[in-house]
Amino acid sequence: MLIVADNLRITNRPVQAALDRMDQEPIRDMVTRCVAAGAQAIDINSGPLSRNPEEKMTFLVEAVQSATTLPLILDTSNPKAMEAGLIACRNKAIINGFSPEPRKLSAILPLAKKYHTDIIGYLLYPNSQVPVGEEDCIQVAIELFDAFKKAGLENEQLIIDPVVAPVIWENGIHHNRSILSVIRLLPDILGFPVRTIAGISNLATGSLPPETKRKLECAFLPMLAAAGLSMALINVFHRETLQTARICHSFLNPGVFSWAEI
Amino acid sequence: MLIVADNLRITNRPVQAALDRMDQEPIRDMVTRCVAAGAQAIDINSGPLSRNPEEKMTFLVEAVQSATTLPLILDTSNPKAMEAGLIACRNKAIINGFSPEPRKLSAILPLAKKYHTDIIGYLLYPNSQVPVGEEDCIQVAIELFDAFKKAGLENEQLIIDPVVAPVIWENGIHHNRSILSVIRLLPDILGFPVRTIAGISNLATGSLPPETKRKLECAFLPMLAAAGLSMALINVFHRETLQTARICHSFLNPGVFSWAEI
Repeated sequence: MLIVADNLRITNRPVQAALDRMDQEPIRDMVTRCVAAGAQAIDINSGPLSRNPEEKMTFLVEAVQSATTLPLILDTSNPKAMEAGLIACRNKAIINGFSPEPRKLSAILPLAKKYHTDIIGYLLYPNSQVPVGEEDCIQVAIELFDAFKKAGLENEQLIIDPVVAPVIWENGIHHNRSILSVIRLLPDILGFPVRTIAGISNLATGSLPPETKRKLECAFLPMLAAAGLSMALINVFHRETLQTARICHSFLNPGVFSWAEI
Repeated sequence: MLIVADNLRITNRPVQAALDRMDQEPIRDMVTRCVAAGAQAIDINSGPLSRNPEEKMTFLVEAVQSATTLPLILDTSNPKAMEAGLIACRNKAIINGFSPEPRKLSAILPLAKKYHTDIIGYLLYPNSQVPVGEEDCIQVAIELFDAFKKAGLENEQLIIDPVVAPVIWENGIHHNRSILSVIRLLPDILGFPVRTIAGISNLATGSLPPETKRKLECAFLPMLAAAGLSMALINVFHRETLQTARICHSFLNPGVFSWAEI
């Protein structure tokens, strides 16, 4: 299970401030700390970037890849920002992402074909609602895969995000229990070892005490890992969550690294 | 997932001292604290009790059930101690346990028939070695179940312990990864919803720092829970492990208790 840093997000005030000033240094500093903490890929969550999307995403990609050669996950709903990021990206790029939403199918999905990149597909309804229950998630996955194949992409380019729900949502816990089965079943259902990604920080969104948030993350992450999750999107500055991810990796991939590294 | 306290074990010096003096009070005190912590059953690990086994196990059972009406898991390899414990036990009793070892099949297993109790069966070879790998574990489970049925017992009386291995064992991590599949597959393989139990403290046996031990337990327990483990045998005084067990329970059994209780 690869560890992807979710730290570089526009909702983090220092990231927004650096972007406003077009100052690479705070971004480089954060990325360097993410890499030191153990990140194996960096998610660049720029938000929709309604003003100057090309210029701003180019700046972000340049800033990040001046500090690391790790894969970059370009995380925006703005197709102009996405394309500019893909053009600027010399590191391996992953598009984050598409869903059955018509705007994503028409404007984001084709970019994976045009730029030969991997792409994350969200298990969401076309109206961006979260399907609740295993059967509905699987049905959405089949429809998502169908749209993905119609866009002329290769199976190996797909990474599915089953969308971890906040536990404070009415059906959040029920949904999260379902996605454990979904992650386990997807390779059989789609007929190839499809990769999966999950955003762990989403679990404890809302007004819970930080200690409770960490405990929830640290209990759910091993469940996802044991189900076969390929990539965990986490705040790599949350020490307990990161340690849990590394222990999970050791449990599931014996011999990869030693206990001393945890 | 039920939480079973493994605290009442003869290797804990105060328990040994109380048994030597036949003093119920320290036992009662420990059991009361286990119940307050959230234990839903108590494992009485008396060891083999080579001297006065009947008298000593009777004392232990009486001491424990003077403090709780929770189910008691009688954990000894000594058939005389086991039978005395079963006779003394007014709470629900569970025998812990048998394995394909000839001595266990001939002297322990028949007690479950005689006293109409549930019984824990260990996935071990007849020489008490641990099978490594999913296929070997499954083969042992089939042989264990066969012996169990030949003893005239009902499916509902069986609880399988796939034997968590210490991570410091050469094949420990590999084995533990296998038992996740084994727990998931057993109901299909045996043809009924067989219950399972696992001793979590076993994972971090050996000379690891206590903080590392807790982290290992807290990462592996959710994997076992998600695989469908029915009963987790833990040290209920390890706060993080207990909290993790409760969070797992919430994740997998929505609505059973509120987040405030974690």
